Amino acid sequence: MIEPRTLKGFRDTPPETMIIKKEIIKNFEIIFEKYGFLPIDTPALEYSEILLGKGGGETDKQIYRFNDHGGRDIAMRFDLTVPLARFVSQHFNELTFPFKRYHIAPVWRGENTQKGRYREFYQCDFDILGTKSLESDIEILSIIKDGILSLNIGNFTIYVNNRKILNSLLTKFDLSEKSAQILRTIDKIYKIGADNVYKELVDVIGISKKNTEDILKFLNITGSADKDTAVENTDIFDILDSYKSILGKENSDPVIDTEYIFKILKKLEILKYFSFNPAITRGLDYYTGIVFEVYVKDRMDFGSICSGGRYDNLTGLYSKNEIPGIGAAFGLDRILSLMEEQKIIKIQNSKTRLLIFNLDDDLNDEYHILASKFRENGINTEIIYEKQKISSQFKLAEKKNIPFVLFAGNEEIKNKKYNIKNILKGEETKLITFEDILKILK
Amino acid sequence: MIEPRTLKGFRDTPPETMIIKKEIIKNFEIIFEKYGFLPIDTPALEYSEILLGKGGGETDKQIYRFNDHGGRDIAMRFDLTVPLARFVSQHFNELTFPFKRYHIAPVWRGENTQKGRYREFYQCDFDILGTKSLESDIEILSIIKDGILSLNIGNFTIYVNNRKILNSLLTKFDLSEKSAQILRTIDKIYKIGADNVYKELVDVIGISKKNTEDILKFLNITGSADKDTAVENTDIFDILDSYKSILGKENSDPVIDTEYIFKILKKLEILKYFSFNPAITRGLDYYTGIVFEVYVKDRMDFGSICSGGRYDNLTGLYSKNEIPGIGAAFGLDRILSLMEEQKIIKIQNSKTRLLIFNLDDDLNDEYHILASKFRENGINTEIIYEKQKISSQFKLAEKKNIPFVLFAGNEEIKNKKYNIKNILKGEETKLITFEDILKILK
Repeated sequence: MIEPRTLKGFRDTPPETMIIKKEIIKNFEIIFEKYGFLPIDTPALEYSEILLGKGGGETDKQIYRFNDHGGRDIAMRFDLTVPLARFVSQHFNELTFPFKRYHIAPVWRGENTQKGRYREFYQCDFDILGTKSLESDIEILSIIKDGILSLNIGNFTIYVNNRKILNSLLTKFDLSEKSAQILRTIDKIYKIGADNVYKELVDVIGISKKNTEDILKFLNITGSADKDTAVENTDIFDILDSYKSILGKENSDPVIDTEYIFKILKKLEILKYFSFNPAITRGLDYYTGIVFEVYVKDRMDFGSICSGGRYDNLTGLYSKNEIPGIGAAFGLDRILSLMEEQKIIKIQNSKTRLLIFNLDDDLNDEYHILASKFRENGINTEIIYEKQKISSQFKLAEKKNIPFVLFAGNEEIKNKKYNIKNILKGEETKLITFEDILKILK
Repeated sequence: MIEPRTLKGFRDTPPETMIIKKEIIKNFEIIFEKYGFLPIDTPALEYSEILLGKGGGETDKQIYRFNDHGGRDIAMRFDLTVPLARFVSQHFNELTFPFKRYHIAPVWRGENTQKGRYREFYQCDFDILGTKSLESDIEILSIIKDGILSLNIGNFTIYVNNRKILNSLLTKFDLSEKSAQILRTIDKIYKIGADNVYKELVDVIGISKKNTEDILKFLNITGSADKDTAVENTDIFDILDSYKSILGKENSDPVIDTEYIFKILKKLEILKYFSFNPAITRGLDYYTGIVFEVYVKDRMDFGSICSGGRYDNLTGLYSKNEIPGIGAAFGLDRILSLMEEQKIIKIQNSKTRLLIFNLDDDLNDEYHILASKFRENGINTEIIYEKQKISSQFKLAEKKNIPFVLFAGNEEIKNKKYNIKNILKGEETKLITFEDILKILK
């Protein structure tokens, strides 16, 4: 006998979780489609070259890579962004731009497992490709707001930054060459604290103390390393004004862009969901403009549940067509964990509304007919296949969380009057017609 | 530059196909839930031992198998039945039986590609586990009928057989030992023809000519090798009666079971969708009772679009608990190909109802506000990010298949009266309120 088990870092999704997961996905999809996004799918397996670029690189160790039977060097996708870049390059001539797509699918990473991290997890990406318009940035932010609101997980903040702002400052300080390194260090501020960021900037990257102090001051980082208090008490537009005077007219374009976005969010009366946070830079180098992360109040430790940003050229690896865009991803599994912890998820192990008891095996044909009539009327209905003690049948209804049970013996079937009980309320109604039961169930 | 391409046997699913695929899946899910089935998910990767059994075996060459970074011998799932067996064994104590689950997910097989066969394809499985009740067989058959009807692909027949019937005959002929071989040969009848089945039974398996003739006569196989005409003109109950007299009382139990199923289908007034076909045996050895396949009229060549059967013990490899059950799977990709061929799929590359034109970049804030109001009212709405020629904007609406466009300049925005045009009908309505537009759109 083989021991039934899943691989480390992998897990089954049982019905009670799957029902919630599908519910969340359905809500997201409705929102995506409200904004004109359409679904695509791409293969789980691709040429390694496509996923990793010619060289391979750092992600290399994390990915599931092997040779297929034809000797091809292939790998399982580790995100949905690289396949999107390949997809858009390959189908460039068939697509209408701006191309708005969403893609909800599992990805695989062989990285070390830790709490809440799995080797197989769902990504829920949405991107607008082929435009540099700030209006598309606003739409992405608006979708994030709608998406998180649909979850009912309480207060949250969408932290927004524009990487170009800090880059402008670094240009002013003549530090643009070290920009990628500096941004990656700053991105760690909520993990390692402001003091360690200071140390790393000075000791490791070799920035002067004066410049480092100015950078951290510019970022409004007080040392408390708490996203909640750092910026929120300051008016966004005041900060941006101060940036304009620090950077000077010639370097202020990214500030003006950012200001425009926040102004429209204000006009849309949704500014309250957003905050400006110049310390958020997103580690990834390919972001070139606005970036964002979403945190749930008092659960900063849970990490961002939705993040993304703008990139200038997604498809450089595969195509001469430069395709700018903006994208974001909901962290579906993280959201699920959060909801489980918050006990928002009520265990729902049935979607069935009515259970028809079996009082007599000879009536099975009638139970089938009755069930099929209820189903035709939109009522999810189950029957019990074999006669058993009434108490067992009630127990089954409770175990399966089915709210209504119907019982009918020979007489009831003949007269087409049935007995129904609302298990939750304990209310029983006797000898009523099919139509009256429908009214109760609906 | 890397050439953007997919692997042989793999393909992208663009929005127009994905929309239909999701629609089909949604319909199936609604039906599954009407019967009390719940969704589960299992990992794409499992221990090879779990998927292949201790030895490995024939499927071996077809599957994607490799070592992970920890040196584990792992593989990608090649169906959803083996993972189900593992899942049920592992979670046996947490589940309520009969356990009805559905699972819609991709599987991978490295087999040779041919028309309509891919190395990555979706399976859409539904099973009832933990019961031998014929009532569960009836429910599975009824779901198949509902599922196929929801597709609107025209006339179809659900061919049903019970492997035990032929096995009873073989017992009578003292041929039970060769039963698996014989059934596998008979299963090929519509591919290789009755003559070749005869030859194979006699020459390869070594059945006597007399027995072979009796078997083929029993199966009512006339040699035309056409499922459509072979059985349909005969009354199912007449055939079953004749079987009872051939097999004798002691061997007729499977015939009586089959008769019971067809009787209930008749009572449910859905018998017209079904046919009895004793030549359908399903190649797979693990089926032990009722088996079925679904063919679309005049498109037998397309193969079965839904099939399955009853098994006595799904979990033998992983558990001492014997778990009987019945399961079926819709062939999602085959169904999609069929619909594409039948031109049932209208190319739908948008789910957007309204496109708001951009007459003035300075009005972008107003366009955002308007779009968000429409979305709040359930209307999928897009805006155009940048001003461009009106003719280009109309072209975009047509290209994206968006039925309505709204145009509003400064005056219209100020007076809150907008112009709307139904592109399909060419009808334009000028200067009407938001509420009146809603009425038109709904």
